[in-house]
Order: sequence, then structure tokens, then C-alpha cells
Amino acid sequence: MNNQIPPLEWKNSKLFLLDQRKLPHEEIIHEIKNVEEAYLAIKDMIVRGAPLIGFTGIYGLLVYMYSESNITKDGFLKAASYLKTARPTAVNLVFEIEIVEKMLLSHLETNKEISLFRDILENHCSEQMKLLFEKNLKMAKLASEELKELYGDRPLNLMTLCNTGYLACGPMGTALGVISYMNDIGRVNHVYASETRPYLQGGRLTAYELSKHKINHSLVVEGSFSHLLKNKMVDAVFIGADRIVSNGDTANKVGSSTLSIVCKHYGIPFYVVAPLSSFDFDLKTGDEIEIELRPEDEVLTAMGTRIAPLESRAFNPSFDVTDHDFITAIFCENGKVKPVNEDTMKGIQ
Amino acid sequence: MNNQIPPLEWKNSKLFLLDQRKLPHEEIIHEIKNVEEAYLAIKDMIVRGAPLIGFTGIYGLLVYMYSESNITKDGFLKAASYLKTARPTAVNLVFEIEIVEKMLLSHLETNKEISLFRDILENHCSEQMKLLFEKNLKMAKLASEELKELYGDRPLNLMTLCNTGYLACGPMGTALGVISYMNDIGRVNHVYASETRPYLQGGRLTAYELSKHKINHSLVVEGSFSHLLKNKMVDAVFIGADRIVSNGDTANKVGSSTLSIVCKHYGIPFYVVAPLSSFDFDLKTGDEIEIELRPEDEVLTAMGTRIAPLESRAFNPSFDVTDHDFITAIFCENGKVKPVNEDTMKGIQ
Repeated sequence: MNNQIPPLEWKNSKLFLLDQRKLPHEEIIHEIKNVEEAYLAIKDMIVRGAPLIGFTGIYGLLVYMYSESNITKDGFLKAASYLKTARPTAVNLVFEIEIVEKMLLSHLETNKEISLFRDILENHCSEQMKLLFEKNLKMAKLASEELKELYGDRPLNLMTLCNTGYLACGPMGTALGVISYMNDIGRVNHVYASETRPYLQGGRLTAYELSKHKINHSLVVEGSFSHLLKNKMVDAVFIGADRIVSNGDTANKVGSSTLSIVCKHYGIPFYVVAPLSSFDFDLKTGDEIEIELRPEDEVLTAMGTRIAPLESRAFNPSFDVTDHDFITAIFCENGKVKPVNEDTMKGIQ
Repeated sequence: MNNQIPPLEWKNSKLFLLDQRKLPHEEIIHEIKNVEEAYLAIKDMIVRGAPLIGFTGIYGLLVYMYSESNITKDGFLKAASYLKTARPTAVNLVFEIEIVEKMLLSHLETNKEISLFRDILENHCSEQMKLLFEKNLKMAKLASEELKELYGDRPLNLMTLCNTGYLACGPMGTALGVISYMNDIGRVNHVYASETRPYLQGGRLTAYELSKHKINHSLVVEGSFSHLLKNKMVDAVFIGADRIVSNGDTANKVGSSTLSIVCKHYGIPFYVVAPLSSFDFDLKTGDEIEIELRPEDEVLTAMGTRIAPLESRAFNPSFDVTDHDFITAIFCENGKVKPVNEDTMKGIQ
């Protein structure tokens, strides 16, 4: 993994972001020199993935502390409010920035010198990154134990959809983190990455990460689910989750629910890997989750080229809901939920 | 349908083919002036779809009769043998040409003048096109009766995958033929066309036909199957078949089997529409059908642009096998098979 370029790096008091819009064909790194540039990096999707967006928000505030000649409480809070609006739906962004806002106010109660907050923030950012790595590693170890119980030590054929690796999370990743961990301990034979139309996160980003990790892999189209599983080409499927509700139903990238139904039909284990921050106990079932409809152009084009006639429309739900009955187990930093239902979900809180 | 350009047209003793490689963005028509050009039109996929390839083969021989100054039996049979090799897997091509070869030999037994065979062949080609139209229309009427029994007269939301319309068949089409017929009689509300990665026959060709027919439609990605059906957005699914074996298992474009499993889960009718020429009673079950693996580049690219890193591989099965238990009914020119199993299949032969 020596050739892995981190999606976010803080080096010599400077913030560097890998431009994910250009992957996998170009590895362009932007130095983020001020708050405006941090805002645009989130808004224009140089970075993506809820955890990474959150990190970019708080590192953007660290950039403020280093780049401004006259640092003030008002200036800091204004920058924080501004960064929170970079993308409307990413909960992590607001969540992480609000923690930092509270830290600043608490600091100022006992210490009038705002510039001393710089080191506190720098330490916090770095700690949060380490913490997420530890959480992800814990989930990966739990998943590897589950697979060992099922299949022993033989190298496995694993499958995933969308991108849930270090590009989405900063360190390591969730479902793809499990796969890279399994590979590190010599238990991966082959990985099937579903390309994940329309935005092709699998074909572009997961394939990029797997290439960087030098993991044997093949891209497949979503239509091939039944063929792959019927022919026993896959031992287990791992996906992430954008939201997990009280009864264990999960929302994730469109295609996840389709894959879970095909897995159930052929008896292939289907696992969800997500941190507790993705759990939403306010909602009872997946029916209550609102599914984001994305622009039609994503479906009507591929890699920037129009597919369909100009008269054609498209329907583009970005997520779908996987029924908890179709999830073999959920792994989070607190442990494993198996089987997945309202009762077992209560135990993980 | 006045603005519909036929994929193959015989006009003023000349053969014209619509270039399907350029659809939907350009409508380029090639005049086929000799046997070599007919061969290349099939080989280079100006035309596609098994029935249309067959027609192009026999019309290619008609072109021979019109374009050659010195028509001989040997010249004709040489042209026939040559055309049969234009694509290796299309059974219809060999099948249709062999009928014409036999017709020629039979003609020559009673009549030494080979040039008189020209009108016989021209008549045969035209008759075959008409016959296929009649078969397709019959299947469409059977399907519409089935839907009437289920849903009455209300306009329906139908879904299909790949392209099985007039572009594939010459006249009308099979599964998409049902949909255009249903639309003609006022019983279509909306059509969901699955884009059919990797070659995008749905996104390019079915969307083109639906636009020509002015049928309300939306493209969707294969990953959206579960979301669409769970939310009751589709009343029935219609697909074609490349092969139907003795127990009713069918091979069709990859994604069909995945869709059938999701349909079964949500209780949505899943119909197969195909002529008897697609039935293969030599094979007992779908497990005996060999699945063609297509070039990896089809998955690694989209609309000509590379998606994945150069190190990435792909796995690209072009077809999959749908279990007969997941097919609500099969429609062919001899009638309806429902339920679909070994016994009911015997009755349709």
C-alpha cells in the first residue's frame, strides 16, 4: 500500500486533497489554501463520502487558523457556518464542525488567546482520523472472524458495490476496508467490484483502490448479479450503509437491495459494514427513509457521453432500502448484529 | 410511427440498412451494393439481432442476383457460404440462408435459367418479413389478452431490458413488440427501459424505438430493479429470449435472471416473448446452455471512454439463464405456455 495517495493529508501545516473527480485516470492533488477553497472542494466533489466530507470541514477550519493573519472568534464561527453549507445532505459535515465550534467556545471560557486553539484543533483533527481508523479496523476484524467461522482460512471470493474504501472515509474504509484487511491477512482470492451505474463509483473508485492495493479484481455490471452467484463465484458480499434504522433495514447505494435479494435466493451471505454514526434509531423501518432522486442526466449519459435520444427521460433513485431479513449480519465498532431484527438491533446501541 | 426508419429496406431493387452502431444520435443509412458489403454489414454490426441478421443474409443473396453481371449456380452458392460465416453464433443466419440454397437447387432441377430465380427469391424474402410480422403480432395479442385478464383495461407501467424491437427483428419485435402494440391500443402509461450495461442496448436502441413510437419512457439502471418493483412502479416485465430449452429455462441478455428473481420476490409478472425458432428442445435444462463471455473492454469502458484503471480486469458474461419457475408465462406464435415447466412446454411444440 506504499503507493496509496491519501484522499486528505495534513503535512507541514498544509492541507492536501486528492481530486476524486479525476480518478482513476489522473491523480491530481490540490493544496487547500483558505476556507473558500475548502468549501469548494466539498461542494464541487473534489472529496466525497460522508466521513471524508466531515474531515475536510474541520481541516478547513484548521486551514483558517493557519491562513488568516487576524484570527477572531467571529471570523472562526463565520468560517464554520460557511463550511457547514458546502453540501446540504452530508450530516457528518455539520456534526463534525459543531463539535469543533463547541470546543472553541469552551476553550475561550478559560483562555482569551484564540491562537492557542490552533494546536488543540490540530490535535483533535488528527485524533479523529486515528479514531475512525481504529473503528474501521475493529469492524474488519469482526468480519474476518465471521468469515473464518464460515469458511475457515481459505482465500475467498468477495464482492462489493459502490465505494466504501479509504477514498470515502479517509482511513481504511468500511465494507472495502474489510476486503483490504482480508487481503492483508492473505484471505482474499478475488474481488468482484460491481461498477455501480450511473455514477460508476465501483468502476472508477473501488477499482482504483483495489489496483492500489494490488488486489486481484474484476469489474462486473449490476446485471450480472444472478449469473455470478448462481455459478458460486462469490463467497460473501460486503456493502456499506448510508443509514441503518431501528429494525435493521438499511439505505445504501442503488443496487444494494437488488443484490441482497439475489444473495438470499442463492444462499450467499450478505453483510453490511457501517459505523454507529450511520445508525438512526429515530426511524422504525426502512419505509420511512427518504430516497434521494438524483439528476436524470447521470443515467442518460455515461462517462460524459450522452447515451439515449434527447427525447428520453430517466428515473434515477440514488439509494434503495435493503430489508433486514436479507442482511446476514451488520458489523459496527460496537460489535456484530446477527441475526438482524428489531430486538438484536437494540443490543448494539 | 411514420418517422420510423426500417432497419432493413428493399426499395427499387436496392438494399438499405440503418447503421445501428450510430444510434440513437445519428441515423445513417447504407446502401448495400454487393455481397461483400452485406457480409461486412453483419460482421461489423451495422445490423444486429438474430432475425435481422438472417434477413440481411438472404437479402444479401438478392443483392448478388441484382449486382452480378454473370450469375451462376457456383457463384450463388459461394456467396451463400461466404455470408453464412459473417458471424459465428447467429443460428438464424445459417438457417435462413440454407432454406434459400435448397430453394435454388430445387428451382434448377426444373429450370435451367438461374436468372429466373431472382423473382422467386425476392418474393421469398418479402414473404418471410411479412410472416415474422404476423408471428410477432400474434404474440403481442396473446400478451395483451393476458394483461387484460390481470389488470383490465387500465394503461399499464411496463418494463423491459435489452432491445427486442423492430431494430432486432425487422418488423415489430418480440417483447418490445408487445409494448408497442399495447401502446397502439392505448394501454401503456409508462415504460421503464433498463439500460442494459455494458453494451447499453436498452439505453441506446430501446430508448430510440420508444422515442420513435412517442411512448412515455424512462431509462433506469439495472441496480434500480428492487427499488422500482418494491415501490409498485411496474405492472409487468417483458423480455425476449435467445434460447428456450425443454423445461422452460431461458437464456437472455445478462440482467434478465437478476430481474426475474426480483420480480418473483415482489410478485410482479415476468413474461418471455420469443418465436418458436428460439426454442431448443435438444437441451433439457438451462444448465446445459453455454454462456458467451464477451470482451472485458465492454465493461471497462462506457460509450467509448475507459472507466477503470488500466490494471483492472472485468468479467463479462453476455447472457444469463432464467429459471422457468421465475417466468410467469412464455408467449410464442403457437400460443401461451403458463405455468412454465417441462410438461406445459411439450404442449407448445
